Amino acid sequence: MRLEGGNSVILRVEMDKQSVTFAELVSVIGHQGGDIVAIDVIRPGRKMEIRDLTVSVVDPSVVETLSAAVAAMKGIHLVNVSDRTFLLHLGGKIQVQSKVPIKNRDDLSRVYTPGVANVCLAIRDDISKAFSLTIRRNMVAVVSDGTAVLGLGDIGPHAAMPVMEGKAMLFKELAGVDAFPICLDTKDTEEIIAIVKALAPTFGGINLEDISSPRCFEIERRLKEQLDIPVFHDDQHGTAVVLLAGLINALKIVGKSMSDIKVVVCGIGAAGVACSRMLLAAGVTHLVGVDKDGAIHRDAAYENEVWNEYAAMTNPHNEKGSLSEVIQGADVFIGLSRPRLLSGEAVRRMNTDPIVFAMANPDPEISPEEAGPYVRVYATGRSDYPNQLNNVLAFPGIFRGALDARASSITESMKLAAAKAIASIVTDEELNSDYIIPSVFNEKVVPAVRKAVVMEAIHSGVARKVPGDFRNLD
Amino acid sequence: MRLEGGNSVILRVEMDKQSVTFAELVSVIGHQGGDIVAIDVIRPGRKMEIRDLTVSVVDPSVVETLSAAVAAMKGIHLVNVSDRTFLLHLGGKIQVQSKVPIKNRDDLSRVYTPGVANVCLAIRDDISKAFSLTIRRNMVAVVSDGTAVLGLGDIGPHAAMPVMEGKAMLFKELAGVDAFPICLDTKDTEEIIAIVKALAPTFGGINLEDISSPRCFEIERRLKEQLDIPVFHDDQHGTAVVLLAGLINALKIVGKSMSDIKVVVCGIGAAGVACSRMLLAAGVTHLVGVDKDGAIHRDAAYENEVWNEYAAMTNPHNEKGSLSEVIQGADVFIGLSRPRLLSGEAVRRMNTDPIVFAMANPDPEISPEEAGPYVRVYATGRSDYPNQLNNVLAFPGIFRGALDARASSITESMKLAAAKAIASIVTDEELNSDYIIPSVFNEKVVPAVRKAVVMEAIHSGVARKVPGDFRNLD
Repeated sequence: MRLEGGNSVILRVEMDKQSVTFAELVSVIGHQGGDIVAIDVIRPGRKMEIRDLTVSVVDPSVVETLSAAVAAMKGIHLVNVSDRTFLLHLGGKIQVQSKVPIKNRDDLSRVYTPGVANVCLAIRDDISKAFSLTIRRNMVAVVSDGTAVLGLGDIGPHAAMPVMEGKAMLFKELAGVDAFPICLDTKDTEEIIAIVKALAPTFGGINLEDISSPRCFEIERRLKEQLDIPVFHDDQHGTAVVLLAGLINALKIVGKSMSDIKVVVCGIGAAGVACSRMLLAAGVTHLVGVDKDGAIHRDAAYENEVWNEYAAMTNPHNEKGSLSEVIQGADVFIGLSRPRLLSGEAVRRMNTDPIVFAMANPDPEISPEEAGPYVRVYATGRSDYPNQLNNVLAFPGIFRGALDARASSITESMKLAAAKAIASIVTDEELNSDYIIPSVFNEKVVPAVRKAVVMEAIHSGVARKVPGDFRNLD
Repeated sequence: MRLEGGNSVILRVEMDKQSVTFAELVSVIGHQGGDIVAIDVIRPGRKMEIRDLTVSVVDPSVVETLSAAVAAMKGIHLVNVSDRTFLLHLGGKIQVQSKVPIKNRDDLSRVYTPGVANVCLAIRDDISKAFSLTIRRNMVAVVSDGTAVLGLGDIGPHAAMPVMEGKAMLFKELAGVDAFPICLDTKDTEEIIAIVKALAPTFGGINLEDISSPRCFEIERRLKEQLDIPVFHDDQHGTAVVLLAGLINALKIVGKSMSDIKVVVCGIGAAGVACSRMLLAAGVTHLVGVDKDGAIHRDAAYENEVWNEYAAMTNPHNEKGSLSEVIQGADVFIGLSRPRLLSGEAVRRMNTDPIVFAMANPDPEISPEEAGPYVRVYATGRSDYPNQLNNVLAFPGIFRGALDARASSITESMKLAAAKAIASIVTDEELNSDYIIPSVFNEKVVPAVRKAVVMEAIHSGVARKVPGDFRNLD
């Protein structure tokens, strides 16, 4: 089994006390390099007993042989071996809680029949009251079909759930947004659209997640057209917002402006397209997208219709050729593709003070060691290198602001405002090539993003409510 | 406005301090019969200020004139008038909570990337692990299309939400079951079936709610066939279980047995059909269903296909005629129809010791005052009369048991067991004609129902897990 951090596992063992003693079990575990640090008796019994043994190991590689040795003991049934991450997932990571207790008939008559009927009738008579009198005010759906989960691909809706639950936790913990994970057992574009439309009365916003390209474009576009609540495909727009935030600050370090740089975006899937659009909206003009056949240009007819649109809006000089060709003279490389696609030699041929955002998962397009000698600013999606460009910086504050302003959609200008807000958290004094982006735990991030998003929602006319702290009575 | 209990309202007023004083406002409210018992300054300001005034009134009928007088004052804008029930609904009644905090990078790496990937892969490799490693273990969907909500009819999905939220609260508060309300913006049978099927990976059970007849039959039947988790239309089966529980105890009082009684069921909609099936399963043989055209019999060809099936399984003597005819000699009347359908005169023509369960909403088929002189046992769905037959007695414990046993469905025998368990809470010493059914707040109900449901799930082979407290190791 894969063992995460901590180097401790929990063995659940069923012991037949007539044929084995606990001392014998301790001895076998010790011989195999394990140290029992905690014991929980799960089910006591005179003859049979179930215990959870927390076993610390110096070297994770011994867990398999240790487990096998325990399982082979007479009178022992090894029920289960768990690490801390698995234990933390038991029964899921989120729960639904009542906001008020139901202790007596009086409470019951208010939250349920007969009192609830008046609330229902008030909403029937004015449907906009659902935004104040139901969970819709603060509830976002995290919707996935499990087709493009992390770097794992199409693992299905059941297996995608732990990620969506984690996302729901982040919404709540970082921004107070209630979020509920919905993993759909269908990959059909039309069916997903119909389902999310039908689910909309329950929610104040829809966060699409880990839906594979190109279906994600159609699904998001159609839902945005048809729903009057925000629909936001985080893999596209969350990534784009955070990349732009990082680029705003990286450009300050090298003293270049959006309008003067050449950007090469490598990997023109969902995130690549969204990032490119966001960069164009932010003022970049010289942008070239590269995918498996090289630069995307206007003399080709691509099967992927999205690429034809992409060719029309990017690559002003209609450059052709491979990544190693179009990288020549580029100021910025943005990788949303595959590990180890970019060589140090290629980076060397970029313009002075090259900026490399290598976001491939789990390993970047170029390692920090290989890029180090050549780049001025280097960032990845990983937490174990400096400059982690993580969507967690964007989506909580964006939805917090959108819900508070009761926004009917999340516009390009709201996303731009969010990116600038994230970038602004890093002060000029703090800014350096190893610190272009705040930590996901920086408590200033969500309030700053929320404020920027609310103001831009009001400004661009999609706000249906002005939050209390944005009203100035005097 | 309709005022519930308490006789206090909250007025939110915006005051222009230059043209009105608070003393003037207090005076007007006092003159109109109101007494200010609490003040909350919502938004202070030098010139304009917003305050919430909790106003106690002796007579609820003054609220309208009081509100109008306040609204008419110069310098006052009456923003809102709320009663306690509405205030309790602000922002909805449930929230999504993380079970574990995310305080640092180490936490984040376990609940989200990269640690979560191992959990995802474990489920991908063995989909049954979703029942232990995700919210599926304890999460029920409360699904409605808003077409038959309480006695209010087709009020739509937005307006139905407060009821579904209330139901989710009851699941959690009474049985520890996480439940999430899903109000669907479609009435199409096929679409509802497809949606619930697609939602299934997220949930361990489906509680269908307030979906109008006859669509509810088809939706439930098809979903039961196609899903391997419990699907339970509470309006049918919850009602049936609680009615049977009440009847078991009522028959003890009159000393009759299921096989000897004549039962007339009035109102053959969703609940009427389900109750009739349950009574037949419990041993009743002489059962006649009555709807708007009188007794349902085998010489008619009904447009409603469900009635043809119903005729085939009930009415052994093929009785015909109106309610007042077939009631002749009946031991039990069960009303699931409309207020005031049953006359005292009709009850007088029932057999000795008549039992009347008058469940019409909001007013029963016959009032307790009118029935009183003739009936031996009388019960309704209302909390202000004795013997409240309330679904809240059934669904929390039934789903608690089904989830704990990881049941693939809720069988007829599990429902029968649940009814017997509810009935058993009332001891022989306690039993009397005003106490045939326990209170919804009786803490013995849920554990008893759970135990009965788990045992029957194991017995009937639909359990996929034996809960810890049902395993006997020795």
